[in-house]
Amino acid sequence: MELPQKVRWMQDIYWEYQRYFTFLKKVSRHEFRKNWFTRISTPILEKVELIKRSIWEETDIVSKEMYNLIDKKGRELVMKPESTAGIMRAYLENFLDETQPVYLYYIEPHFRYERPQKWRYRQFNQIWAEIIWETDPVLDAKMIFLWKSILDWIGLKWTYKVRINSLWIPKEREKYIEAIKDFFSNKSQHLDENDLARLEKNPLRILDSKNPDTQELLKCAPKMTDFLKKESKEFYENVKTYLEILWVEYEEDPNLVRWLDYYSHTVWEFADFSGRSQDAFWWGWRYDELAKNIGYKTPIPAVGFAFWAERLIEAVMDAGVKLKNKDEIQLYFIQLWDEAKKLILPLNIEARNKWLNSLLSLGTPSLKIQMKKANKINARFVAIVGIMEARNWVCQLKDMQSGTQEEIKLEKLLDHVINKVGTDCLDFYDPSKDFIIVENKISE
Amino acid sequence: MELPQKVRWMQDIYWEYQRYFTFLKKVSRHEFRKNWFTRISTPILEKVELIKRSIWEETDIVSKEMYNLIDKKGRELVMKPESTAGIMRAYLENFLDETQPVYLYYIEPHFRYERPQKWRYRQFNQIWAEIIWETDPVLDAKMIFLWKSILDWIGLKWTYKVRINSLWIPKEREKYIEAIKDFFSNKSQHLDENDLARLEKNPLRILDSKNPDTQELLKCAPKMTDFLKKESKEFYENVKTYLEILWVEYEEDPNLVRWLDYYSHTVWEFADFSGRSQDAFWWGWRYDELAKNIGYKTPIPAVGFAFWAERLIEAVMDAGVKLKNKDEIQLYFIQLWDEAKKLILPLNIEARNKWLNSLLSLGTPSLKIQMKKANKINARFVAIVGIMEARNWVCQLKDMQSGTQEEIKLEKLLDHVINKVGTDCLDFYDPSKDFIIVENKISE
Repeated sequence: MELPQKVRWMQDIYWEYQRYFTFLKKVSRHEFRKNWFTRISTPILEKVELIKRSIWEETDIVSKEMYNLIDKKGRELVMKPESTAGIMRAYLENFLDETQPVYLYYIEPHFRYERPQKWRYRQFNQIWAEIIWETDPVLDAKMIFLWKSILDWIGLKWTYKVRINSLWIPKEREKYIEAIKDFFSNKSQHLDENDLARLEKNPLRILDSKNPDTQELLKCAPKMTDFLKKESKEFYENVKTYLEILWVEYEEDPNLVRWLDYYSHTVWEFADFSGRSQDAFWWGWRYDELAKNIGYKTPIPAVGFAFWAERLIEAVMDAGVKLKNKDEIQLYFIQLWDEAKKLILPLNIEARNKWLNSLLSLGTPSLKIQMKKANKINARFVAIVGIMEARNWVCQLKDMQSGTQEEIKLEKLLDHVINKVGTDCLDFYDPSKDFIIVENKISE
Repeated sequence: MELPQKVRWMQDIYWEYQRYFTFLKKVSRHEFRKNWFTRISTPILEKVELIKRSIWEETDIVSKEMYNLIDKKGRELVMKPESTAGIMRAYLENFLDETQPVYLYYIEPHFRYERPQKWRYRQFNQIWAEIIWETDPVLDAKMIFLWKSILDWIGLKWTYKVRINSLWIPKEREKYIEAIKDFFSNKSQHLDENDLARLEKNPLRILDSKNPDTQELLKCAPKMTDFLKKESKEFYENVKTYLEILWVEYEEDPNLVRWLDYYSHTVWEFADFSGRSQDAFWWGWRYDELAKNIGYKTPIPAVGFAFWAERLIEAVMDAGVKLKNKDEIQLYFIQLWDEAKKLILPLNIEARNKWLNSLLSLGTPSLKIQMKKANKINARFVAIVGIMEARNWVCQLKDMQSGTQEEIKLEKLLDHVINKVGTDCLDFYDPSKDFIIVENKISE
């Protein structure tokens, strides 16, 4: 019988990779919470209708990349390929009566049946933030700042640049689309199939073309900024002013255009400038039109951003960020006798109460084997208890760094070790400080 | 156009419920990490073959409750209904060459198309821990202790009791199954259809029957403990001894039998004794046979436990546990003039650098409307900046508890507020202490 393997192009996350992911989540959570964002988790499954309405039906995501299923009652469901639609759905269901605007963040897995690439798995994780219900350009600037703060906090300072653009409102965009079509109308012989299709279906996407010929042509094409009306222009100018107040360096990129038709006004991305890749893997946008697209009576102002966790982890590793491991074992207990284990067990637990990481060796293999293991797991101190030690209530304490060994009374062991390792590597989290018990229904 | 709603019997998690979930995850993570457990995340999708091999094909989960799908390449996949199988798969793929035993924990969503019940959603969250590769009864006791520690830390102390039993090894179990069949052979007229089917397919499950008549009969049925052989008996006795050393109160329940055939030796559950419900919603087990069941050449000793997060949150709420909200806004900025916003914006950011939660009001509505909002979000202090204040670089600082108001220079505002609110409500997490940069490839 062959062992079932994991599903192709999905990954098990553990060890160092998991630690980077944890760090990324932890920093984001703290930054979000400090800025009045509250966490939301939406189900992995959404109705296929919702996804189709929010993402252009013509996009690859809808046509080829979705993990669909039909449930036992015949409902057509999809494992979410992204979360904006689900969040807007959740907002409309749950948040319309709350104090506005609503600040939401989420950390969720998404699913796309994509051509596999490095760091691009078919289940991938994204960290998002959204502010819904308010159009104030200061929010766009604050979002960019918050975004940048997270990147800086995780060790990426000076490794990326900020690019911004405005897509204005859909009505203005229509005029620009006409101009673009016009510009390319006599140049179709220079375009590849892909770009011709874009020009046909969604002309703005041509600005995002990766074809060098098209990119060359685009340098002479009409620029979006020239088509802005007064209010949109003012909005964009204000965003830029606030960015300057916040000391955010940015560059304007008129070809920065994301391809979803619910975007409006500000879009931005942070581009890696390591030379290795110019792909944006963290970006943000204003998406006032989404609510209407999925079926609400009016547009609802909203601004958000996303991290692609796997790519961000790659960037953090490339930047040379090494995480400190706070979970190392400071004290490893070795017993050479079954009865010794009974003596040590409560100490192992007591160590936890003193915030010290300790671990008990198992079974009763030879001292040599047990010491080997202590070495392997990189234990700082080893306490050895054999028959004689157990009888005298002592242990042989070995300092694994200096190699020295001394006899210590068991009742003094923990404080002795804590004294040696210092308080920096202790985890003082005390859950009882996080809550009060107001009324215990059960004990009444 | 009707708005798409969320998928039935799935939930959006936010506000207070999310905070309880966060708390539960945080406490578990800390306890796990203190005890040498490392986090693993496995994909939501697994091959259907893996799930079928690990859970009896006859169980409801496989026959009726799975969310299946077929991917674009025709692979039969399933959204995991539980994680043990996926973890054992991941262990066999990734951990066989690591230092043994391996201590793993995970916090994952699972999916079952079940009859909806209170707190039982079709996407639900579980928190699990596993120790794989070692048979030492001290591990069973430590797992029970760890389990109990988490329950106690989250505020459930004295609200539950621990029940344990041994299921021994499969060979011994066979003899007992014969005895049970024998006992019921002349009592089939007293059994309902459900129990008759159990007796046929998987006789041990009858011990788990909810039928009062069957429960009555079971009182006279042969007991599992009477069928134990020497080694199993010793194993069980050792687990109990270690539990006593660890001061864990427990009761033995010979009818405690989980229905998966890969279990062996110790099983335990924590039963709520609020009277409201006697259902176990946190349990643990040794499952030495699973590895062989899914296709590995031999059994691999393993012991694990699971929390059902949604039910645990219910229990915590019922126990009167109220979480402290550390995310409240201590300082709310109100500007009565567009230029004032530009003045305040950097202060809003500076507050973050001083670990103070602050929020900027948006747009330029009237003072009355802005004050109302400050009240709604429960801001501790409000700083008001109008035209005159902006010109003089001051603000009117209102203490929302006492109602008093004073004029404060803007450069002194933050320290003044921090002084008033105290350091208890500040979040001093500094990510830069979590890492070092060893080599910056990009800056070279």
